[in-house]
Amino acid sequence: MKTVPVFVADDARVDAAAIAPLPNSRKIHVIGSRPDLRVPMREIAQADTPASFGGEKNPPIYVYDCSGPYTDPQARIDLRFGLPALRQVWIEERGDTETLSRLTSDYGRRRAADPELAALRFPGLARAPRRARDGANVTQMHYARRGIITPEMEFAAIRENLNRHAYLENLRASGKTGEKLAALLARQHPGVAFGAAIPAEITPEFVRDEIARGRAILPCNINHPEVEPMLIGRNFLVKINANIGNSALSSSIAEEVDKMTWAIRWGGDTVMDLSTGQHIHETREWIVRNAPVPIGAVPIYQALEKVDGKAEELNWEIFRDTLIEQAEQGVDYFTLHAGLRLAHVPLAASRLTGIVSRGGSILAKWCLAHHRENFLYTHFEEICAIMKAYDVAFSLGDGLRPGSLFDANDAAQLAELKTLGELTEMAWKHEVQTMIEGPGHVPMQKIRENMTLELDWCKEAPFYTLGPLVTDISPGYDHIASAIGAAQIGWYGTAMLCCVTPKEHLGLPDRNDVKEGIIAYKLAAHAADLAKGHPGAQIRDNALSRARYEFRWEDQFNLGLDPDRARAFHDATLPVAAAKVAHFCSMCGPRFCSMNITREVREFAAAQGLAESEARA
Amino acid sequence: MKTVPVFVADDARVDAAAIAPLPNSRKIHVIGSRPDLRVPMREIAQADTPASFGGEKNPPIYVYDCSGPYTDPQARIDLRFGLPALRQVWIEERGDTETLSRLTSDYGRRRAADPELAALRFPGLARAPRRARDGANVTQMHYARRGIITPEMEFAAIRENLNRHAYLENLRASGKTGEKLAALLARQHPGVAFGAAIPAEITPEFVRDEIARGRAILPCNINHPEVEPMLIGRNFLVKINANIGNSALSSSIAEEVDKMTWAIRWGGDTVMDLSTGQHIHETREWIVRNAPVPIGAVPIYQALEKVDGKAEELNWEIFRDTLIEQAEQGVDYFTLHAGLRLAHVPLAASRLTGIVSRGGSILAKWCLAHHRENFLYTHFEEICAIMKAYDVAFSLGDGLRPGSLFDANDAAQLAELKTLGELTEMAWKHEVQTMIEGPGHVPMQKIRENMTLELDWCKEAPFYTLGPLVTDISPGYDHIASAIGAAQIGWYGTAMLCCVTPKEHLGLPDRNDVKEGIIAYKLAAHAADLAKGHPGAQIRDNALSRARYEFRWEDQFNLGLDPDRARAFHDATLPVAAAKVAHFCSMCGPRFCSMNITREVREFAAAQGLAESEARA
Repeated sequence: MKTVPVFVADDARVDAAAIAPLPNSRKIHVIGSRPDLRVPMREIAQADTPASFGGEKNPPIYVYDCSGPYTDPQARIDLRFGLPALRQVWIEERGDTETLSRLTSDYGRRRAADPELAALRFPGLARAPRRARDGANVTQMHYARRGIITPEMEFAAIRENLNRHAYLENLRASGKTGEKLAALLARQHPGVAFGAAIPAEITPEFVRDEIARGRAILPCNINHPEVEPMLIGRNFLVKINANIGNSALSSSIAEEVDKMTWAIRWGGDTVMDLSTGQHIHETREWIVRNAPVPIGAVPIYQALEKVDGKAEELNWEIFRDTLIEQAEQGVDYFTLHAGLRLAHVPLAASRLTGIVSRGGSILAKWCLAHHRENFLYTHFEEICAIMKAYDVAFSLGDGLRPGSLFDANDAAQLAELKTLGELTEMAWKHEVQTMIEGPGHVPMQKIRENMTLELDWCKEAPFYTLGPLVTDISPGYDHIASAIGAAQIGWYGTAMLCCVTPKEHLGLPDRNDVKEGIIAYKLAAHAADLAKGHPGAQIRDNALSRARYEFRWEDQFNLGLDPDRARAFHDATLPVAAAKVAHFCSMCGPRFCSMNITREVREFAAAQGLAESEARA
Repeated sequence: MKTVPVFVADDARVDAAAIAPLPNSRKIHVIGSRPDLRVPMREIAQADTPASFGGEKNPPIYVYDCSGPYTDPQARIDLRFGLPALRQVWIEERGDTETLSRLTSDYGRRRAADPELAALRFPGLARAPRRARDGANVTQMHYARRGIITPEMEFAAIRENLNRHAYLENLRASGKTGEKLAALLARQHPGVAFGAAIPAEITPEFVRDEIARGRAILPCNINHPEVEPMLIGRNFLVKINANIGNSALSSSIAEEVDKMTWAIRWGGDTVMDLSTGQHIHETREWIVRNAPVPIGAVPIYQALEKVDGKAEELNWEIFRDTLIEQAEQGVDYFTLHAGLRLAHVPLAASRLTGIVSRGGSILAKWCLAHHRENFLYTHFEEICAIMKAYDVAFSLGDGLRPGSLFDANDAAQLAELKTLGELTEMAWKHEVQTMIEGPGHVPMQKIRENMTLELDWCKEAPFYTLGPLVTDISPGYDHIASAIGAAQIGWYGTAMLCCVTPKEHLGLPDRNDVKEGIIAYKLAAHAADLAKGHPGAQIRDNALSRARYEFRWEDQFNLGLDPDRARAFHDATLPVAAAKVAHFCSMCGPRFCSMNITREVREFAAAQGLAESEARA
């Protein structure tokens, strides 16, 4: 077992590779209705079309950017101070919260006072914790139901539209063929949306309405003012979550912070800290203070540490203190396995792989040890009271998700899902934002049923699924086996896909594994957006394919999800710089290139009058 | 441009890593109705279940094995001599072929006589080329239609059943819980087969009937007696093809032979040699003589080399000679872009990415240069005459497949597909085995239409698709973007999936890339088998998941698609040997493991009488 290096403030440097802007990219901000509402996007510059292909100017395109200030050369990054509190003013303006003179959680206070933890503790200026005023509800759902469009909602609305209109207007203005080009490059195949209702343009009012009816969440704890607001809902772009977290066996705080910054660089929309080892509390503080994306956690992991791993010794008081401890740190959503009821447990006894959810197995053990109903279920309304005091969203956990194809869609899984539907209604009664977690391991022909039942039983609350893996025989390649399932369930209506890494089932992912998982899932999520017919989803594909056709190699690399790898793969065969502007590639060589031949075909066709009516602008 | 190392016989050693048996695996042969009908399978031994989980014996399981003699320690591997001629006797017994005193192709003769090629040439004992006797048709379809079950058909039928009954019988015989275990581990979810008609057991007669009606092919050129017969058809296991081949810029004959042996080790069911560089003829000879899997080729690539890359100088005579040259070497299927008609070409002029198929663009150029119909189309019946004299199968190419989402399912693509349906009927009239190539780049919501139209227009001739890629923005990860599409189209009915490597669009794949593509596609193909409800498809998943649940780490690695990687990933976190038998893993650590907790849950449940009726054997 390797020793566990700990985090000390002097080591708190972010890796240079995680903060350089991506190639040919710069951070821009689209300004909303007030000057402090600055929505980040990544602008990717493109080269002009070569003269032989028409010589058009190609305006930059804009893509979703989860990386926060890290890729902004203007920003001063120092992990010891954390990120700027973007939402601080908005939260204060609402006047429904108060700052507390000290932490509410006993455990949080003890950790703060322990001199032995000084070297581990996040050293940045301690912001006082914030909580709803007595009787107030500070959730985005609460505001939404009262017709209030918060700055967070407007921010997230602007973000969803990806500055598409600016790109298309720039295209139209780019010379005499601009109009035709804009029409061509905006074209996409009609979607098949399985009942999703995606408008042509996301407005702040639409966002408000989706949150009000529970069909989307905007996770943003009032104690995480650093977060850049984003949406999780079936009528928005499909999002992905990346898991990080140390275990009892491996990895340090520094590694986890590093994985977080790496994960958001490559497109993690939210990050879950699943740490189970020591110093969970301090690790989380470092992560939250430096995270521009919502952070999720599974409070039962830490509660279990507090009772030395003895599930039967858990109780509501310890758990409640843990919820408050994490809520005051700024965790944006909690996975809570409140739907796993005592009566469901025996349903899992006939399974091939039993209960594979860690949270689920802890609670199942507790239920059986005491022969009592799950205390998260019995205390659910008290939990709601905590959630609405900080705006922590529920991620109602699927403690009985299948761990193998064999167990997919079985009675245990579906009984829990039905219960999650009941809990969703209770959460909504308290105006607490809620999403639903889903499987797991499911063969392709059983995926759709998961989505259909979730939409039905949980009333369109956002579905947040782990994969699903479509086969069990892929150790080492589970990111691919699960991306296949994720693309399909995303198409059917899942709002957020939880990345699986190549190390799944085998070991703890390092940052390269996290990146592999993220890129596979960005593909899956984007494929789902395209299939649903999300407006503008095909713009990036069209731009990349046009660059490919015109041998704009650099643009082809930069418009893809991982410019670094695309370039490295190209260079492995044709390393010289001249090849980046060459009108051929290594697959065919200079003499024999189908792209070139196509151009000749087009010229032939035009010359012979064969294709006049069809000819491209 | 790097220099091109050539192959010399002294270098003709196969890499040790490509011939060692896989871990805990051995090659077995299931004997058919005659002693020389020995069907290879890979047997994977399993450890006993630990006593704490019940202590059962776990019999070995059997998986499909494409690797030929290479993984057989009994075999003497020497690339200079090629593989044993497994089918020689069967071909001779039929008495409908003759051996020729010399090659029929002019080009082949010239290459054979050129002293400068001596060092490059395959040195193994030259087998005389073989051809059908005058007027004879030697295709498997011809025999099938006459009610003849060939040894090839029986071989392939046995192969499809994966020795499943032996495994299940061994399970039943393995102690007092055997019956229950066998029932449990054979269980699988009902499939959704979209009209496929898969019997519970593949019989030789079923194979014959499928070949006779054109719904499957068994590619086996009479000049490739080394091939181990296999089936491509929607009612059989979904197969995958791996592409290899040098280009004008890179890679040598030795590298290509090495890629072939590597590709079949990891599960390539067929291999296409797409070489476009120099020495195509000699490269192909080395590959075919050492290939236990069917080899496909695209003859137009070589024909183009013969006219110095000038497409307009191609003519039927050169092409015809090329077909015969390759048929007498033993190529098992030819990609022929005979469905790309002159009238279709202008339909491609309005595309975003034009014609991306190399073969398609060559023929489009030829058609336009001469303003004449594609000579493959006009000479199609003459081509059929050649195909049936050697039993080369058609792989009717989609020269107008889309190279971008934008161009998916457009008029050009569908016009060609319709023509391929007409050609299929003509090929069947000549009793030539035929499959149909498909796209390409297709968003998920347009995939199904490709399959439906193919089944309809091409009368269920096997579909053989390249991916499809479900997004264009994945350079460097196109194996994943396309595996997502491949799993779906495989489910809908595609018979063979053509692997895409991570280097797609960027560079020439090396052997690691070939492996990455193959594993991604084995996953996709297996996911499709599961979704269709292919009998026994879930056996391997169930066995692996049970091994996972019982902490049989070695078995978990070995039952997966890539034991080497699974083990390496596990060892990256927990390298010590004891961890391979530890009842925990690196994700949770020893104190906190959901699998262990599940076992306790089961004991609790049993003790409390909660789960008696449900309890697992």
